[in-house]
Amino acid sequence: MIKALATDSPSSKLKPFEYDPGPLPADVVEIKVEHCGICHSDLSMKNNDWGMTQYPFVPGHEVVGTISRRGDAVTHLGLGQRVGLGWYSGSCTLCSQCLSGNQNLCSSHEQTIVGRHGGFATHVRSQALWAIPIPEGVSADKAGPLLCGGITVFNPLIECGVKPTDRVGVVGIGGLGHMALQFLNAWGCEVVAFSSTAGKADQAKGLGAHRVVNSRSEAELSPLSGSLDFIISTVNVDLEWQSYLNCLAPKGRLHFVGAVPNPVPVAVFPMISKQASISGSPLGSPATTSQMLEFCSRHQIAPVVEYFPMSQANEAFEHLEAGKARYRIILQNDLA
Amino acid sequence: MIKALATDSPSSKLKPFEYDPGPLPADVVEIKVEHCGICHSDLSMKNNDWGMTQYPFVPGHEVVGTISRRGDAVTHLGLGQRVGLGWYSGSCTLCSQCLSGNQNLCSSHEQTIVGRHGGFATHVRSQALWAIPIPEGVSADKAGPLLCGGITVFNPLIECGVKPTDRVGVVGIGGLGHMALQFLNAWGCEVVAFSSTAGKADQAKGLGAHRVVNSRSEAELSPLSGSLDFIISTVNVDLEWQSYLNCLAPKGRLHFVGAVPNPVPVAVFPMISKQASISGSPLGSPATTSQMLEFCSRHQIAPVVEYFPMSQANEAFEHLEAGKARYRIILQNDLA
Repeated sequence: MIKALATDSPSSKLKPFEYDPGPLPADVVEIKVEHCGICHSDLSMKNNDWGMTQYPFVPGHEVVGTISRRGDAVTHLGLGQRVGLGWYSGSCTLCSQCLSGNQNLCSSHEQTIVGRHGGFATHVRSQALWAIPIPEGVSADKAGPLLCGGITVFNPLIECGVKPTDRVGVVGIGGLGHMALQFLNAWGCEVVAFSSTAGKADQAKGLGAHRVVNSRSEAELSPLSGSLDFIISTVNVDLEWQSYLNCLAPKGRLHFVGAVPNPVPVAVFPMISKQASISGSPLGSPATTSQMLEFCSRHQIAPVVEYFPMSQANEAFEHLEAGKARYRIILQNDLA
Repeated sequence: MIKALATDSPSSKLKPFEYDPGPLPADVVEIKVEHCGICHSDLSMKNNDWGMTQYPFVPGHEVVGTISRRGDAVTHLGLGQRVGLGWYSGSCTLCSQCLSGNQNLCSSHEQTIVGRHGGFATHVRSQALWAIPIPEGVSADKAGPLLCGGITVFNPLIECGVKPTDRVGVVGIGGLGHMALQFLNAWGCEVVAFSSTAGKADQAKGLGAHRVVNSRSEAELSPLSGSLDFIISTVNVDLEWQSYLNCLAPKGRLHFVGAVPNPVPVAVFPMISKQASISGSPLGSPATTSQMLEFCSRHQIAPVVEYFPMSQANEAFEHLEAGKARYRIILQNDLA
């Protein structure tokens, strides 16, 4: 039996819950959970904001742990090896996306906390290819958020071909944005942080921003007109997107990794004139996630985290929901 | 003096007009006009639809002719050499866009019919680098529309990295779209034409489409869901863009070369899920235009055209305005 924490309705608190995961499939591993980050999507799923939550619901998709069991076909991961598990826990392996290394775009992917039980537990399972080895140089007790928020902002640097000579803007300096600043600084870019929270300016600079711009001030935004090659938006609220589009340089791109509530209105003529793009991307593939972890190891990149014992996950959720997390919360496993 | 045809107000007809172009600058050539295509933008400018027309207004930016004079600094073009001139007639040569080969994105570019006189004339001038040599294998009396409509749809194939293995859709089978079909077929792609004009299906197939889909039929559109790597829209009317976005494959792109009246509403969550892009581009650089002309020569690509004598330019405009052009109109120069 796996011991976990689960809710049984959108409004209820997490309570102890046990389940039998059944026989271990040949291509699956079981991970003994050491740490598990909390992501805003755990909250959205707990509250059934997306209408796809199944109860009892066990959150947790920023897992770091060690391989405790492995299916008969798994040979590339050793028992006791430290791995991470993020939003995806399986993919078909045979569709054209899987076969070309884009397993994250597999249309029948499995998601760690959708229709199955996540990482707020003693153990969690994953198709072996989605259990990503954690390199030596990456701190295990901080790595969890890299597997979800981190790869979400790292993946576009690879997929959109961001260059070290680019001027890049980061919209929203929170759980995702504070990692984006670190990646982009190490990537060699000129990094501009957009934030409407006054107190975050110094923190943003400490994390790698060369400049911090108050995104609610037209006086601060307008001098950036035509100057940014890439803007990554991590927020999940509607903003004046045309102001950001105006900041794009010729061939510039505004890229979304946070889903915003309303459609973004894109004026076509200015987009044509400067050959601009608008795009989005989900989390990355296993190969890109491994590249990210190596990059983190080489550049000492880690999320800024706060710790709660897993048994206090309800308190941790309240802290997150109140917008107080600076910047990412990690649960240390004390379930037994 | 240069003899031309000009209008003196949005509602008036073209009438004979003469002007003195002044001394020839060192980096400029004068082109003796043989043929000049008519583009929808000539009509928009004639009618001052974009609020930037200066009168007297001489239309014409799809010019084919021969070098009749050249400035002192021009050595790479010979007198009598056949060249083409499109929408752009000058760029600063020194900004970062010009220096990196993106002269089409120069923020101080000169446009052939904006604040200066175009190609409905015996002669027209251009900065020498925008007078593009017409290769031997390209028919001079059909090349005009390649310099504007042609390069507008060819440029994205280069800039967006369209691959011969891609499945591509063309929205709008008119002046631009009928050239896009030819380019994409020769590019090696699977080509789907979207048209709401029933009579164009056979023509579209003759031009290179493998399939023709009625863009107003949800029954014909929905089987394309998730299948197209690239969709190029050439229309200037609002459509149900979400239907086209639904047709995109993972990593697919909806690309606009026609300015549509209203902002395109882009739903962010589905864009993120399949890593889609929305983008736009203007006409291409001189180097890309030369690549296009070589490609046309190698693949016998030419616009489908109708001819009018230049002295009947008013009748030609009426034909275009009535939506009767199949697919591009060329004026044969009979001014003297």
